[in-house]
Amino acid sequence: MSTVPLIQYEDASPEVRAVFDDIKRTRNVPDVNNFWKALANHPETLRRTWEALKEVMRPAALDPLTKEMIYIAVSVANNCDYCIHSHTAAARAKGMTDAQHQELLAVIGMAAQTNALANALKAPIDPQFLR
Amino acid sequence: MSTVPLIQYEDASPEVRAVFDDIKRTRNVPDVNNFWKALANHPETLRRTWEALKEVMRPAALDPLTKEMIYIAVSVANNCDYCIHSHTAAARAKGMTDAQHQELLAVIGMAAQTNALANALKAPIDPQFLR
Amino acid sequence: MSTVPLIQYEDASPEVRAVFDDIKRTRNVPDVNNFWKALANHPETLRRTWEALKEVMRPAALDPLTKEMIYIAVSVANNCDYCIHSHTAAARAKGMTDAQHQELLAVIGMAAQTNALANALKAPIDPQFLR
Amino acid sequence: MSTVPLIQYEDASPEVRAVFDDIKRTRNVPDVNNFWKALANHPETLRRTWEALKEVMRPAALDPLTKEMIYIAVSVANNCDYCIHSHTAAARAKGMTDAQHQELLAVIGMAAQTNALANALKAPIDPQFLR
Amino acid sequence: MSTVPLIQYEDASPEVRAVFDDIKRTRNVPDVNNFWKALANHPETLRRTWEALKEVMRPAALDPLTKEMIYIAVSVANNCDYCIHSHTAAARAKGMTDAQHQELLAVIGMAAQTNALANALKAPIDPQFLR
Amino acid sequence: MSTVPLIQYEDASPEVRAVFDDIKRTRNVPDVNNFWKALANHPETLRRTWEALKEVMRPAALDPLTKEMIYIAVSVANNCDYCIHSHTAAARAKGMTDAQHQELLAVIGMAAQTNALANALKAPIDPQFLR
Repeated sequence: MSTVPLIQYEDASPEVRAVFDDIKRTRNVPDVNNFWKALANHPETLRRTWEALKEVMRPAALDPLTKEMIYIAVSVANNCDYCIHSHTAAARAKGMTDAQHQELLAVIGMAAQTNALANALKAPIDPQFLR
Repeated sequence: MSTVPLIQYEDASPEVRAVFDDIKRTRNVPDVNNFWKALANHPETLRRTWEALKEVMRPAALDPLTKEMIYIAVSVANNCDYCIHSHTAAARAKGMTDAQHQELLAVIGMAAQTNALANALKAPIDPQFLR
Repeated sequence: MSTVPLIQYEDASPEVRAVFDDIKRTRNVPDVNNFWKALANHPETLRRTWEALKEVMRPAALDPLTKEMIYIAVSVANNCDYCIHSHTAAARAKGMTDAQHQELLAVIGMAAQTNALANALKAPIDPQFLR
Repeated sequence: MSTVPLIQYEDASPEVRAVFDDIKRTRNVPDVNNFWKALANHPETLRRTWEALKEVMRPAALDPLTKEMIYIAVSVANNCDYCIHSHTAAARAKGMTDAQHQELLAVIGMAAQTNALANALKAPIDPQFLR
Repeated sequence: MSTVPLIQYEDASPEVRAVFDDIKRTRNVPDVNNFWKALANHPETLRRTWEALKEVMRPAALDPLTKEMIYIAVSVANNCDYCIHSHTAAARAKGMTDAQHQELLAVIGMAAQTNALANALKAPIDPQFLR
Repeated sequence: MSTVPLIQYEDASPEVRAVFDDIKRTRNVPDVNNFWKALANHPETLRRTWEALKEVMRPAALDPLTKEMIYIAVSVANNCDYCIHSHTAAARAKGMTDAQHQELLAVIGMAAQTNALANALKAPIDPQFLR
């Protein structure tokens, strides 16, 4: 259960509606999802987060699907339920195949293991790894 | 300072040398890095971890560079110093450009922020995100 | 579902009842919440945790509301569902306004982002930050 | 050692210099600290992060010192060395006393303990905690 | 809700069935649990994970119950719901008493607290702790 | 570098000296380690943390070595450098062999991997795992 009320479009201020409209237009969806409705309790954070997300996730040196898979990797490491589900859906919408999803999860699991081992072993960083 | 001694090739058992040889051959490097020398205190874990890493990181549905960037993303989220440095070096060796590196970091930072916000807001997962 | 049974007042030992009574008296509530009923499986941990919490959270150099908001910040970073809900309720009972709650969440999100970026960038700590 | 070069003012592009100038003016400091010099490798992330930080940390419903202490709490929970040092320095500059610092740390430690216990016990969230 | 379908024995490929059969035989259970059914979407990860788990958890220098309690400790620190429940059940099946369970949780909570305090205080590591 | 000064015995208040004396007597050591000297900036937290640690770590249903290994497991998962080093030293002093240490690390690494996989897969918890 959310810690704040969800703001629906019809109850939203003009400032919030403007962001909701931009999300719907940009993503071509009929309604914004619950994360944005929860964020809308603080219009400033809603706007800033949406603008930042648009800027960060647009195609550039990395393609949108790669960015979504990186987002999933961080979300799993931080154990964010909502984010794992929403970005898995987003990655699938951008063409992630089952095989890519499975390899993504295998890399995440492997990294978690060697992260734990390296944090425990504390081997000195090899000089050739440093710029 | 490492919590275990680093095992050098010349002091290693035949079992450990076999793994070290495979790492050097596979990666075309003159010596294994410190993580493997630390792991070599437990030959079974050394072998199992190396075999798993080879299997997980080989090119398949995802290309090796994408896998390294996912590895970096998890390593940053888990704050593993050694892993961030070693996999950043590996990603560069596989062709990661500065622009790709910078966008990778931007996505990691953005994901960390919305992970925290979503974990705090606990909005219910939208039905369309569930399979 | 809890990993241990919840101990109700009427089934509790005198040692547990004494702690429950002190919680109810201190907080002026008719019953202790589920966290304490779960902890009561280990009377020693119940007593130690309650005594520590009383000591740490009492007003001193920081006021109780500030302490609750710090508690929420840590609980979000550690992704503790129960704690986020219980300490958000506690903060509201101590006067946290919606505006304060929203700014708290914005700071938590911002900190999560720059934490991730700083952990990834590993810039050396500026000398002026060290005592 | 940082994973990217630090960009000094004299080597920076006009876009980066504009952000550096704003940081120096806003904080009344002779130079930006290393975090910003590292971020400057990606001018877009530099600008976005600085603009967001200014917006989030300005005094409003919460005062600047409370915001810095919340920032420290999250940074400790995420174990960000750089951030702990830089925001502790910032909190002191905004008037945090030793006594406040000590209580802040005590709350952070206490929260980490009950977060772990609550995550382990998984007691159901009491209905009165839900809005 | 799982992010992948659960693969039931009757729908599984021969490769997956072979692993399921080995799990059932090794653990003397009529069916594998949901974790393995979810992993079975990637037969390679299923096999590798099961083989590794068998190797790591078999009795050797540490007895199986101690290994399960260590597994619980890590799972609580990583806040893995599924793992906390499955390994608590496994530890009980291997003889963990209520008193042992309670002391395990007390140690986990205490460690979480001093971890946070030590990460915040950043006292230099005493020379006698280094090998 | 520590975020607070280290309090040496000769500069300590009587209240702090009493705790330092008890630590030295209980552990039969000539001086307390740096964690306690850093904590001593807040005599109340010093005393409370030491009393709690003594209570939690004393032999009871679990033996002291098992408790130290659990402490290491949590410290690795939380990536606490100081704690990993101090509790590894403590475990060795209590008789942990190299073989036990190596198996401990293997279990920690395995748990980190399956924690990440289970958090990503979100398979429903099997009914038989619930009490």
